[in-house]
Amino acid sequence: MRPILVTFAGGASGPWRTWRVDAVIGETLPVTERLVVLEGEGARSPAKVDWALRGVVSNERYVNGAERAALEVRQAGLGRPEATCAALIPVKKSEAWWGLTQEARREIFEERSHHIATSLPYLPAIARRLHHGRDLGEPFDFLTWFEYAPEHAEAFEELVGTLRETEEWTYVEREVDVRLIRDGYH
Amino acid sequence: MRPILVTFAGGASGPWRTWRVDAVIGETLPVTERLVVLEGEGARSPAKVDWALRGVVSNERYVNGAERAALEVRQAGLGRPEATCAALIPVKKSEAWWGLTQEARREIFEERSHHIATSLPYLPAIARRLHHGRDLGEPFDFLTWFEYAPEHAEAFEELVGTLRETEEWTYVEREVDVRLIRDGYH
Repeated sequence: MRPILVTFAGGASGPWRTWRVDAVIGETLPVTERLVVLEGEGARSPAKVDWALRGVVSNERYVNGAERAALEVRQAGLGRPEATCAALIPVKKSEAWWGLTQEARREIFEERSHHIATSLPYLPAIARRLHHGRDLGEPFDFLTWFEYAPEHAEAFEELVGTLRETEEWTYVEREVDVRLIRDGYH
Repeated sequence: MRPILVTFAGGASGPWRTWRVDAVIGETLPVTERLVVLEGEGARSPAKVDWALRGVVSNERYVNGAERAALEVRQAGLGRPEATCAALIPVKKSEAWWGLTQEARREIFEERSHHIATSLPYLPAIARRLHHGRDLGEPFDFLTWFEYAPEHAEAFEELVGTLRETEEWTYVEREVDVRLIRDGYH
């Protein structure tokens, strides 16, 4: 699969309505009324946009073979009709993180912070897609997009709360949490 | 260090004069008279360009701590006055490569193909910088730029010849080899 460029455009239109925007670490993003997720190089943002964040769905960086197999068995795709709640969580990690070797990053990510092991029990209720922005010169290194049904909202809070307590998160220097509800295109 | 976007623009102007362009695997690139290397987002290509390839100098993907230390002791920077020979080697790897896990790619790259171990003895004579293009939607996944003095031309041929015989190279589906001589800006 070739990498897919995805643009998250916050503005006056889109199928997702914003219900809250929280600055978790560092500077927030302007509150936006609605959000649209656009795929592909040629995707055109709506005319009136408060902000647009870009990232690429690309090759895997950390999972090993066993973890990939476990994820593939459990994970759900995006766009399930019942998954009317979404979160867009843009994260920027520190230069200290990016200066680590691959093996040191993997060690912190999984062996010490259990990022994958922690996330697995929340699948398939919570669907997730990761977008890489650092090499594009974007303000955020990662844009993670989550979709879940309202009855899993509490589980989702538990998941993000657990990840934010990890050693991995000590390398996060900016994080915004945008929550959305799908109520049809506007 | 934040990632640096680099554009290699082949056209009528630039300090590097092309002396040969070889298609190693797959489709070649149009022969171009000269080449200029531009750094940064705002860098403007010259007016007349035959082609422009882009890549990002980004975080390391494969080296471990010991390898990084060995590289840092030995490697030379770009722009040495005596290094008047250069090679731009754009490479695209197969989807089979990108579908491998990180650990499987590392295993092939170094434990089985000895990419770093093979390259180390050629430092500091041959300076090298790697640029990542895949996530930018570029036609090549990697652009590697080499600079060396004329007396190391034979060593350079030996290095690229050795790498092309490795298991790693069985995943290369397109490779072009552009050789250049620095003769001042034109």
